[in-house]
Amino acid sequence: MKTDVMCTLVALQASLRAALTNDMVLTDTEEMLRFCRDWHGDVTSSAVAVLRPRSTEDVAAAVRACRELGVSIVPQGGNTGLVLGSIPDRPESQVVLSLERMSAIRNIDADDFSAVVEAGCILSELKDRIAEKNMYFPLALGAQGSCHIGGNVSTNAGGINVLRYGMTRELVLGLEVVLPDGTIFNGLSTLRKDNRGIDLKQLFIGAEGTLGIITAVSIKLMPFPDQVATALLGLNSLEDAIKLYRRARRDCSDLMSAFEFMPPLAFVLAREAIPDLPMPIAGDYPAYVLMEISGSGLVDIADLMERFLGSVMEDGLVVDGVIAASQAQARNLWLFREGMNEGQAKRGPHMRTDISVPLHRLADFVRDAEQAVSEALPDCISVSYGHVGDGNVHLNVLPPSGSSPDEAAAKIYKAKAVVNRVLDGYDGSISAEHGIGRLKRADFEERLAPSRRALLTALKQAIDPSMVMNPGCQLNFPGIS
Amino acid sequence: MKTDVMCTLVALQASLRAALTNDMVLTDTEEMLRFCRDWHGDVTSSAVAVLRPRSTEDVAAAVRACRELGVSIVPQGGNTGLVLGSIPDRPESQVVLSLERMSAIRNIDADDFSAVVEAGCILSELKDRIAEKNMYFPLALGAQGSCHIGGNVSTNAGGINVLRYGMTRELVLGLEVVLPDGTIFNGLSTLRKDNRGIDLKQLFIGAEGTLGIITAVSIKLMPFPDQVATALLGLNSLEDAIKLYRRARRDCSDLMSAFEFMPPLAFVLAREAIPDLPMPIAGDYPAYVLMEISGSGLVDIADLMERFLGSVMEDGLVVDGVIAASQAQARNLWLFREGMNEGQAKRGPHMRTDISVPLHRLADFVRDAEQAVSEALPDCISVSYGHVGDGNVHLNVLPPSGSSPDEAAAKIYKAKAVVNRVLDGYDGSISAEHGIGRLKRADFEERLAPSRRALLTALKQAIDPSMVMNPGCQLNFPGIS
Repeated sequence: MKTDVMCTLVALQASLRAALTNDMVLTDTEEMLRFCRDWHGDVTSSAVAVLRPRSTEDVAAAVRACRELGVSIVPQGGNTGLVLGSIPDRPESQVVLSLERMSAIRNIDADDFSAVVEAGCILSELKDRIAEKNMYFPLALGAQGSCHIGGNVSTNAGGINVLRYGMTRELVLGLEVVLPDGTIFNGLSTLRKDNRGIDLKQLFIGAEGTLGIITAVSIKLMPFPDQVATALLGLNSLEDAIKLYRRARRDCSDLMSAFEFMPPLAFVLAREAIPDLPMPIAGDYPAYVLMEISGSGLVDIADLMERFLGSVMEDGLVVDGVIAASQAQARNLWLFREGMNEGQAKRGPHMRTDISVPLHRLADFVRDAEQAVSEALPDCISVSYGHVGDGNVHLNVLPPSGSSPDEAAAKIYKAKAVVNRVLDGYDGSISAEHGIGRLKRADFEERLAPSRRALLTALKQAIDPSMVMNPGCQLNFPGIS
Repeated sequence: MKTDVMCTLVALQASLRAALTNDMVLTDTEEMLRFCRDWHGDVTSSAVAVLRPRSTEDVAAAVRACRELGVSIVPQGGNTGLVLGSIPDRPESQVVLSLERMSAIRNIDADDFSAVVEAGCILSELKDRIAEKNMYFPLALGAQGSCHIGGNVSTNAGGINVLRYGMTRELVLGLEVVLPDGTIFNGLSTLRKDNRGIDLKQLFIGAEGTLGIITAVSIKLMPFPDQVATALLGLNSLEDAIKLYRRARRDCSDLMSAFEFMPPLAFVLAREAIPDLPMPIAGDYPAYVLMEISGSGLVDIADLMERFLGSVMEDGLVVDGVIAASQAQARNLWLFREGMNEGQAKRGPHMRTDISVPLHRLADFVRDAEQAVSEALPDCISVSYGHVGDGNVHLNVLPPSGSSPDEAAAKIYKAKAVVNRVLDGYDGSISAEHGIGRLKRADFEERLAPSRRALLTALKQAIDPSMVMNPGCQLNFPGIS
């Protein structure tokens, strides 16, 4: 680092400390590290400082101080994002603002089917506290032991229950947001219906911190689903899995809460990560579905699952299957889904995608994309799995074992181009649930229609004209100050 | 009308005819009348012209022509709105742009659980066409035989199924919008999950045409609920009705599709409108609930309803009840709910509200508001009913029969002030589902927080700086051109 840059940095850090309570400002490089490295550990950056406010007023003060100093802010929740949305890319002029100290649950109201919670609350803790009141918050994703509810809202997180309960957007009743000018938008209502003009909170959901900092959230709660039936099914093809999904929606009256597709390789990968994992189904099948039906009260969910499987097996849509007889067995079935991810990670760097296409084109897309990969990269392996009921597939590509980092990187780069080229013919999305962040910005911008770019630019200009909020995330805005 | 205004008007009309295909422009006062009178017939306005485009390109051309002529546009769907959002208030400088000729259903895809439809399609026609494919679009409201899907989206319509399926916003997958600069925003995707940056379509949902003109919509479809159980229940109080709602959500595993609260007066009013309507329950009760559970496939909905009612009647939460034994009987039960509205209309002008409060405060609010009305207006009658599961109550006030129009108007004015004053203490909304339009603009502006006003102004300035889109609706923006 050059001396003059160092001087600027030290001066900025001193100014932040002078402007804010000392306890809020972290500048020690070692201490800052965990805030500046991404979830996968692929990227390590740095920052002018890490700010750790304890209250909404602290956040507002931080925003005002940063504006005055010409420093921009990268808001950060649990830092579990997969697209580098909460890691600085301009360390000399960016601070990380972590919400981790704002983790209070302000209220859980079972009678109102709602809760109000600060942005920094860890999702699994929130869910546990809600469950204590026999209520349920359905957002469920791999990172739930670390991610924050504020980050979930800011990225409009998806996960395994979207088919039943929708994306995070559909679970949000209200928001408190610190705006780029340091004022506070107070919209922590718990009203289920409120048509007083344009619904401003929608702007901040999925904006990845580019229009303001979400400091608290009010959310919808559901009755706790005390009955859950989980089954692992063997099928003849992805096409059959999609047919099964359609039939399950109708036959199970939309009480299905998860429907995950996995290829045969899932078991191989899962056992590479968890060697003792018992094999749940005897035979080998070209396709597997992990399916969950859940409910509460007077509906007999176990009976529904049994009758449904009886019917689809009689029709040959499902070849073999096992229904978990206990919570422990259900947990083991889910371990395959989760172990598959760990197994991929153990094989080293690989290409991860997060693609959605219209449901009726999903099987064609996977076939075309896997074929294109095998033609362009014959020594790589494709693994396609995911939330197929939502049209969302994670089509990943694993370089051969023993690849050097450079070789792997080259193959990943090529694989991404190959898959995206196929995707462009399918009216699909390069980001179904992970967001854009900095990782997918170039791919996003490349595909952005002029009318959308114009609207996004007008919006940014209107709400954050001085570009204090997460510049470099989602989109670059040349021409704005 | 003064001569110079007339000249301007005729000149504007001629210019519109010159700029647009002649067939698109309606200027005959008689022919324009139905586009310039509101649903209730309370307000009759006029316009420079009524434009009736046949295509998205027509709409874009109309927007460009209006901008050039300095004429603003009031977009109109089925003109069934209740808040004067689609009726001109500046007839000398506004045109109505009706979407009625853009009514094509572009696609219904049962395999994708989606449909794509033009804005001017009548809701009930859309639902019927969808039902032919054994699919279901759950939006349901009184005006469905006349309202347009574009208007539903533009106003984020609610209705009776919100408790299960959400507001219109949650049913929208994509939008096509003509923007205020005449460009076309093409977002007619049917993807269920798409986190490519800020979700721009959210801006136009519920904006009541103030940011652009919705020309087509892609929507979510569900399996058709071929089992429906309908029951009318007698209870001891609104408090018990709310307890029943909470219990029903849990016991029926959120398969409840309607839960309407009615006071005893509902039956009196309904029979004033439909004298032959049979009385479904023998006794008189302080509170009634019309409840519907629905589903498809292997879940036995009739059995669920029976077991649920058995259980809540045993506990004394429900005193008496009747389950419809046929579709015709179910229809009769719904006629009470609908007849109650007609009965109110027959009694002449009255105050209508569309209020929401947090669910756990609903009973207190209704008690306080009704008491305040009876103190301030002892000769008026309050009728509180509605979608109580959503915290949404229509607390209406009927002036005494025989009131002169002026007397009635004075009482309505006073009743509104009284109810709104109570509401302000309850963190409620003056518009749960009807929107703001022009009717509620003053009440909305009066209660608008500065940070919200600033954001709404910035948004309007960013997207519609020349104020061509529905000025006077929702909010006035002094200082914008």
